[in-house]
Amino acid sequence: MATNISHKPCDLVLFGTNGDLARRKLLPSLYQLELAGLLAEDTKVIGVARQASSDEEYKAAVVESLERFIKEDLNEAAKEKFINRLSYCQVDMTNPEDYKGIAELVDLESRTMVNYFSTPPSVFGDICSGLNYAGLVVDETRVVVEKPIGHCLESSKVINDKIAEYFNENQIYRIDHYLGKETVLNLLVLRFANAIFTNNWDHECIDHVQITVAEEVGVEGRWGYYDDAGQMRDMVQNHLLQILSLLAMEPPVDVSADSIRDEKLKVLKALRPITEQNYQQKTVRGQYTSGFVNGKSVPGYLEEEGANTESKTETFASIRVDIDNWRWAGVPFYLRTGKRLPVKGTEIAVHFKKLPHNIFKDTYQNLPANKLIIRLQPDEGIEIHLLNKVPGLGEQMDLQQTKLDLSFSDTFKTARIADAYERLILEAMLGNQSLFVRRDEVETAWTWVDGILDSWNSSNELPKPYSAGSWGPVASIAMLARDEREWDE
Amino acid sequence: MATNISHKPCDLVLFGTNGDLARRKLLPSLYQLELAGLLAEDTKVIGVARQASSDEEYKAAVVESLERFIKEDLNEAAKEKFINRLSYCQVDMTNPEDYKGIAELVDLESRTMVNYFSTPPSVFGDICSGLNYAGLVVDETRVVVEKPIGHCLESSKVINDKIAEYFNENQIYRIDHYLGKETVLNLLVLRFANAIFTNNWDHECIDHVQITVAEEVGVEGRWGYYDDAGQMRDMVQNHLLQILSLLAMEPPVDVSADSIRDEKLKVLKALRPITEQNYQQKTVRGQYTSGFVNGKSVPGYLEEEGANTESKTETFASIRVDIDNWRWAGVPFYLRTGKRLPVKGTEIAVHFKKLPHNIFKDTYQNLPANKLIIRLQPDEGIEIHLLNKVPGLGEQMDLQQTKLDLSFSDTFKTARIADAYERLILEAMLGNQSLFVRRDEVETAWTWVDGILDSWNSSNELPKPYSAGSWGPVASIAMLARDEREWDE
Repeated sequence: MATNISHKPCDLVLFGTNGDLARRKLLPSLYQLELAGLLAEDTKVIGVARQASSDEEYKAAVVESLERFIKEDLNEAAKEKFINRLSYCQVDMTNPEDYKGIAELVDLESRTMVNYFSTPPSVFGDICSGLNYAGLVVDETRVVVEKPIGHCLESSKVINDKIAEYFNENQIYRIDHYLGKETVLNLLVLRFANAIFTNNWDHECIDHVQITVAEEVGVEGRWGYYDDAGQMRDMVQNHLLQILSLLAMEPPVDVSADSIRDEKLKVLKALRPITEQNYQQKTVRGQYTSGFVNGKSVPGYLEEEGANTESKTETFASIRVDIDNWRWAGVPFYLRTGKRLPVKGTEIAVHFKKLPHNIFKDTYQNLPANKLIIRLQPDEGIEIHLLNKVPGLGEQMDLQQTKLDLSFSDTFKTARIADAYERLILEAMLGNQSLFVRRDEVETAWTWVDGILDSWNSSNELPKPYSAGSWGPVASIAMLARDEREWDE
Repeated sequence: MATNISHKPCDLVLFGTNGDLARRKLLPSLYQLELAGLLAEDTKVIGVARQASSDEEYKAAVVESLERFIKEDLNEAAKEKFINRLSYCQVDMTNPEDYKGIAELVDLESRTMVNYFSTPPSVFGDICSGLNYAGLVVDETRVVVEKPIGHCLESSKVINDKIAEYFNENQIYRIDHYLGKETVLNLLVLRFANAIFTNNWDHECIDHVQITVAEEVGVEGRWGYYDDAGQMRDMVQNHLLQILSLLAMEPPVDVSADSIRDEKLKVLKALRPITEQNYQQKTVRGQYTSGFVNGKSVPGYLEEEGANTESKTETFASIRVDIDNWRWAGVPFYLRTGKRLPVKGTEIAVHFKKLPHNIFKDTYQNLPANKLIIRLQPDEGIEIHLLNKVPGLGEQMDLQQTKLDLSFSDTFKTARIADAYERLILEAMLGNQSLFVRRDEVETAWTWVDGILDSWNSSNELPKPYSAGSWGPVASIAMLARDEREWDE
C-alpha cells in the first residue's frame, strides 16, 4: 500500500484527541492518508487527552469515529494498519509531570515529533511548557496550531508569544483549513501556470473581484461562542483574507513556503486601512432577522436559543477592499460573507474590464465583461464567461453570454476530492509550511481587521438587519451600486 | 411565419438553377430561410437555365431537390409558400435576347434584383452583358458570384474586369462559403467582444497559430477538374486565407462591410512573400499514394479513375506564413490542408506563449502552454486548454492539462446550425457585403498564392508522397520541428 513516501516517519501527537475536531476531521483524515499509502511505515499516532483510557479503549473509540464520520465502507487492511499505529496517553495539560508519559512513547531520534494542538488556545502555553519540561522540544519538533489565533491583534500576540518561547517560527504550523482545499491550492496553478491568466492579472485587465463565502446555516446552538467572535473574526480575518492574498499576490520566485508567504504578506500590508473616517462607505455589517431559508421558517439571530437580545455582533459583513500597490491600483476586491444567506457556497468572481469599444452595439448595446468564476464549494470548478454568437439566422448578429466550464468532479472522475485536513496534516508531516500561516501574516491581518471592528464598536449604529434567506442588508447592494457594480447572484 | 423582416423584397435570379450547387445547397437554403420567416413577403425566386421547362415542371423539380437534400421532413406550409415564389425562365446565356424573358418577370421598382451566378466563370461575362442588354442593370441590382474567381491573379482579373464593366464593387457579392459558417462568424465575436482574448491577441502573448483543414475524401471522380486546381487553389487561396485574415486582422472600427474588409486586406498585404528563394523552407506540397483511410484501402492520387499519371498537382499543402506587421512580428501561422488525411475537420489552434518562469518545475518540468482551440467542423465548438492541479494527495503537487469546453450543439441545444449558404444568401438579400470577398482581397490573395505556385512549378521537384490516411509528408512535420514546434493531432 505504501508508495512514494520520502518523508521521515513521525510521532503525531494529537492533543485534544477526544474533541469534536479530532473525531470528525483529524482521525478520519489520518485514516485516509493511510489508505492512500501516504503514512511512513514507522509513523505513530499518539492520542492525548485528560480522560483515563487504555490503548484498547482508545483504539475502539477511534474505530467508532471512523465508522461514524467516513461515508464509505472502511478498508479493513488500512483500518487495521492505522489502528496499530495508535496509542493513548492521559495528560492533564496543566501538569508538566504528565508529559513524561508522552516522552516514553515517542522517539526523537528516528521520528519527527509533530504536535497537533486541537485544544482551546488558552492551553497552548501549558502544552508548550509541558513538552519543554519533558525534554521534547528539539530543533525538529513541530507544532500544528488550530485557529482561532486570538480575538484581535493583542490577544493573538499573547498566544504567538507563548508558543514562541519554546518554538521557532519554522517549527510552527498555523492552520487555516481553507488553505488545504483543492480549489484554493489550484489558485496557485491557475494563476502561475497559465499565461492566459498571468497576462491578464492586473489593473489593466481586471475591473474588480468578488469573493463570497455564503452559509445557509445560522449559529446552530453555538450562540455564545459565535457571539464572541462574529463573522469578521470567524471568516474574514482568516479565510477570506487568505483567499484574497493568494488571488492578489505577486508571482513568487518558487513554491517554497517563505517565497509564497512573503508575497501573501505584501498583499496584506498593502490593504488600505479602514478607519472611523471611511468605514461607512467601505463596510456593511448585518445581523439576520427571522425569515425563510430553503422554504423553512427560521428565527432571527436575537431569537436563537441562548441569545443575548442586545447583541451587536455581525452575522454578515461586506467590505470593499482596496489594495494599494502597483498591480491593483483602482481595482476593488469586494468581500461578502454571512450566515443565513440563500445558499451555501464559496466563490471567487474575477470580473475583467469591459472592452473600450463595442463594434456590436447594434445588437448588444452593453456588452457584458468576461468573468472567471472559481467555485470553491460545494461543487469545485472553474468557469469562464465569454460572449459568443448565437448560432442561427436573423437579420442581425445575436450575441450571448456562454460558459466554458470545468467541473473538478466531472473532469477528474476517478479522484476523490481530499478533505482539507488530509492535505494539511500531510504537509505538516512533510515539513512544508507553504500552506500554513506565518505569524506576520496573522498579525497583519488582525491589524487590518481590528480597524474595522474598532470603527464598528465605536459607533452607535446597530448592525443592519437582513431577513434570513436574503443576500444581506440592502446597504451591501448599495455599496456596489455606488461604484456602478453589482454582486453576482 | 414571417418575422423581423426589414429588408426590401427581392427578385432572386438563380443562374444555373439545374446545377449541382443550386439543387444541393441554394434551393434548400432558400427553403430554410422561408421556414425561418426570413424571406420578405413579396420576394420572388426565378430559376434560369438553358433547358426548356414550364413553371410547373420547374416547381416539381425543386420540390424533388428539397426532399432529397433536406434531412428533416418538409414543413408543408413553408414548402407551399416557397413554391409559390418560384418561376422559371429558359435562357441561353450567350443570347442577349433571351434576357428579356427575365425582364418580364422582375420588378426593378419594388424589388431588389439579386442575380446569383451559379455557373462556370466563363459565362459570367455573357450573363452581365445579357442583363445589361435587357435593361436590368440599375444601381440596386446585385450579383452574387460563386468561386473560383480565376485560376491565378491574371485570370481572376479577367473575370473581375468583365463583371466590373457592368457592376460597381458595391453591387458584387463574391462568395467564399467559409465566411458563412457559424464558427467563422463567431471569430469576430470571440476576438472583439471578449477582453480575455482581445488583450492576449498579439506577439506578446501568442507563440504561433495552426490552421488545419483536413479532408478524408480523395478526388471522388472529379479528377480532371481537381487536377487543374490542386489544394492551393481549391482551399488555401480562398478558405484558409479568409480564416487567417479574420484571425489576424486589427480590430475594425465597426462591423460594416468595408471596415472589416479593409482590415482583412491589410493582413493579406502583410503576408511575407514566398518565392523561389524560400519556398523550400516555408512550404511542403504533397500528393497522396495508396493507403488506408478509416480501415479501408484506397488508391493513390495517380491511380484514381481518369488520372494522368504524370500529374504534379498537390493534394496536400502546408505553409509557414509570416505576417509582417506590428501585431504579428515573429508569430508564424502554420496552414495545413489536404485530401486523404486521417480525419475530416477544420480547426484553429492558437498556441499562447509559454510562461517565462516555471515555479512548478519540481513536478512539471516543461509546462505546456495554454491553447485556444476553435473547431469549425465537424462539431463546432471552442476549447481552452489550461493547467490545473490534479485533485488528490501526494507529497508533490501534480499538474494536468485540462479543457474548458463549449460545444455549440450542446450549448445552443434548440438552435439548428444553419448552412453557410443560408446565411450568405440572406446577407446578399440584406445588402450586407461584410461576409463577401472584395476584389482587392481576391487579388492580394492570388498574388501571394501565385508566388508559391510559381516557385513549385519552376522547380524540378515532384510533390512529396504521403500515404493516404496519414497527416501528409514527413517534411510537413519537419518544417515545424525546425521551429521547435509540433502540429496538434
